[in-house]
Amino acid sequence: MRVILPKNLLAERLSFLERVIPSRSSNPLFTYLGLALGQDALVLFGSNGEVDLEAGLPAEVQGEGRYLVPAQPFFQLVRSLPGEQVELVLGGDLELVSGAFRTRLALAPTEGYPELSFPEPHPSETYPWQTTLPVEDLLRALTHVRYAASHEEYRAIFRGVQLEFSESGMRSVASDGYRLALYQLERPQPFQKKAVVPARSVDEVARVLKGVGAGEVVLALGPGTLGLAVREGEGWVRLAVRLMEGEFPDYERVIPKEFPLKATLEAEAFREALRRVSVLADKQNHRVDLFFQEGRVLLSAEGDYGKGQEELPVALEGTPLAVAYNARYLLEALGPISGQAALWLSGPTSPSLIRPAEEGLGYQAVVVPLRV
Amino acid sequence: MRVILPKNLLAERLSFLERVIPSRSSNPLFTYLGLALGQDALVLFGSNGEVDLEAGLPAEVQGEGRYLVPAQPFFQLVRSLPGEQVELVLGGDLELVSGAFRTRLALAPTEGYPELSFPEPHPSETYPWQTTLPVEDLLRALTHVRYAASHEEYRAIFRGVQLEFSESGMRSVASDGYRLALYQLERPQPFQKKAVVPARSVDEVARVLKGVGAGEVVLALGPGTLGLAVREGEGWVRLAVRLMEGEFPDYERVIPKEFPLKATLEAEAFREALRRVSVLADKQNHRVDLFFQEGRVLLSAEGDYGKGQEELPVALEGTPLAVAYNARYLLEALGPISGQAALWLSGPTSPSLIRPAEEGLGYQAVVVPLRV
Repeated sequence: MRVILPKNLLAERLSFLERVIPSRSSNPLFTYLGLALGQDALVLFGSNGEVDLEAGLPAEVQGEGRYLVPAQPFFQLVRSLPGEQVELVLGGDLELVSGAFRTRLALAPTEGYPELSFPEPHPSETYPWQTTLPVEDLLRALTHVRYAASHEEYRAIFRGVQLEFSESGMRSVASDGYRLALYQLERPQPFQKKAVVPARSVDEVARVLKGVGAGEVVLALGPGTLGLAVREGEGWVRLAVRLMEGEFPDYERVIPKEFPLKATLEAEAFREALRRVSVLADKQNHRVDLFFQEGRVLLSAEGDYGKGQEELPVALEGTPLAVAYNARYLLEALGPISGQAALWLSGPTSPSLIRPAEEGLGYQAVVVPLRV
Repeated sequence: MRVILPKNLLAERLSFLERVIPSRSSNPLFTYLGLALGQDALVLFGSNGEVDLEAGLPAEVQGEGRYLVPAQPFFQLVRSLPGEQVELVLGGDLELVSGAFRTRLALAPTEGYPELSFPEPHPSETYPWQTTLPVEDLLRALTHVRYAASHEEYRAIFRGVQLEFSESGMRSVASDGYRLALYQLERPQPFQKKAVVPARSVDEVARVLKGVGAGEVVLALGPGTLGLAVREGEGWVRLAVRLMEGEFPDYERVIPKEFPLKATLEAEAFREALRRVSVLADKQNHRVDLFFQEGRVLLSAEGDYGKGQEELPVALEGTPLAVAYNARYLLEALGPISGQAALWLSGPTSPSLIRPAEEGLGYQAVVVPLRV
């Protein structure tokens, strides 16, 4: 069994697996990288028990078979190989040759390695529901809301990102119970389902989608699993992600609908001023006060070190008022917005809505003011 | 008391102090940044008890005085100020104004802050011995040997870098008892002294010298203290570094003088091959075997994962032999060498010398082979 392929191609695809495969695990088999030899393709696979990942790449292949190689030394070696080509000879062990360098790595028996089930081109028993999205749309839906997921053990469901598929489109939602972020993709979906993906797995999926960059991704949903498949050049990447059990409690009711005050500010200038002023803020609640006045807003904060303030121009609609926020929550909610940001207040102590001032960009965040 | 100066200049000079001033300390005064107002100059100062640092910069100054401001928020604020100018008004507190941003920071009383003694243009009681070196020479002398200093509590003196001043030049030496690095600067010195600088302080000094980049540095030596002073543009930087007590045991005797085998290799290719082969090495001793043969050297290693080998061209003088090293020690010893490296063996188990193949570059390292 023999494979010959360009070193750079192998190194590039290995990078997808490098963060998924753990260097230590209660199941030692998870520390191995899988190599499967198929027709004109080398398939790399790995898992951490939460995320399964497979990357297929075109290669000159003789024979077939499945092998497990110790992942960490393999990653390290491939990155630094001297030749342009890599030759892998698989049998009782793995012999790797590149330029003047050659190595023999011990293999692990493949018995006991879990069966990985990735989505197929057509709906299957594992994945009865399928849809296709542009890679950049799914990436945007995940990365716009990820920050709002909870880090707390309390209410475990909030440690995931909820994906909602329906006739009206696909929506991603994250919340920690104190703030909420959602992204609405106006693209009718062929089934009506909700799925909660653990936030850490969202990071892995986003990393792979970023690596792929463009194209279409097949999203396949089945009981307890979300599958993804994407073509990349002459190769492909497939993922299977364990879902969380349950779904978010009804969050629609916390999204305010009436706004006595609507403010529009330049998002980046607002973020910079918030960062400066919040240096002085109380270390516990990160409180920054916003005093809206005609045409301007005064940001101020006070803590152990002293106090700071800054004024920004703002376009207002409604009755000026004073409000206070946790500066970190406000900064994170503003994070995905470029250009003009809209901050819509439902009152000095009731939830505020933050979104791009421009219509139809799909992102909105809810932040609750601090009690004055 | 008022100072006006460009934000970028202030931010740049603060970066020298930012790593010296600790964010926490058993002496809370060390977490403060000192501001001294002088004639047309703002002097920033700080200390961590081991290294004292002062940076003077030209500024529009009214009044005089010494003040202590909380360093961490000051660093954070100055980096992100919106204006091009910064105005500091010092009195009961510090008022800082830049663009639309203004802040008031509480000051600490200066009583109890240690007296910092920096070198003066002429020898003083604190610093009776003085010499001048090009900044890049001192930087090279420190960074070439720093890696060899010990991390162990055992034989504390080896946790420093020894500087030796004599008629024949200035030498820097570091060792952990298992390997040794030295750098000889052929530049006669006006006094004969040895001083051991703690390795962590060497890092701070090197960082400042790198920031300054070029010019001349005054080195001033006194009982227990090494002082440094360097001009930078219209400003200056001065350091005072606490020295370690004692000096290195006689290390000259471990430097081999007779070499049955002299090998010359391309340094970067040697390092790369060592990195690859050592991926397979035993995790305890990082052993890599070198088999010298006519015109080539075979590197090989073997550990839990398997084994690896690579062959490199080499120019030999003497009798080929086999030798084994800790790959990490060998890699670190080769680190400062570009171009051709010389590896001179005194025998398969006695110390080897590593140096640039080119004469007169001042750097040499001693590494002891592993017993076969």
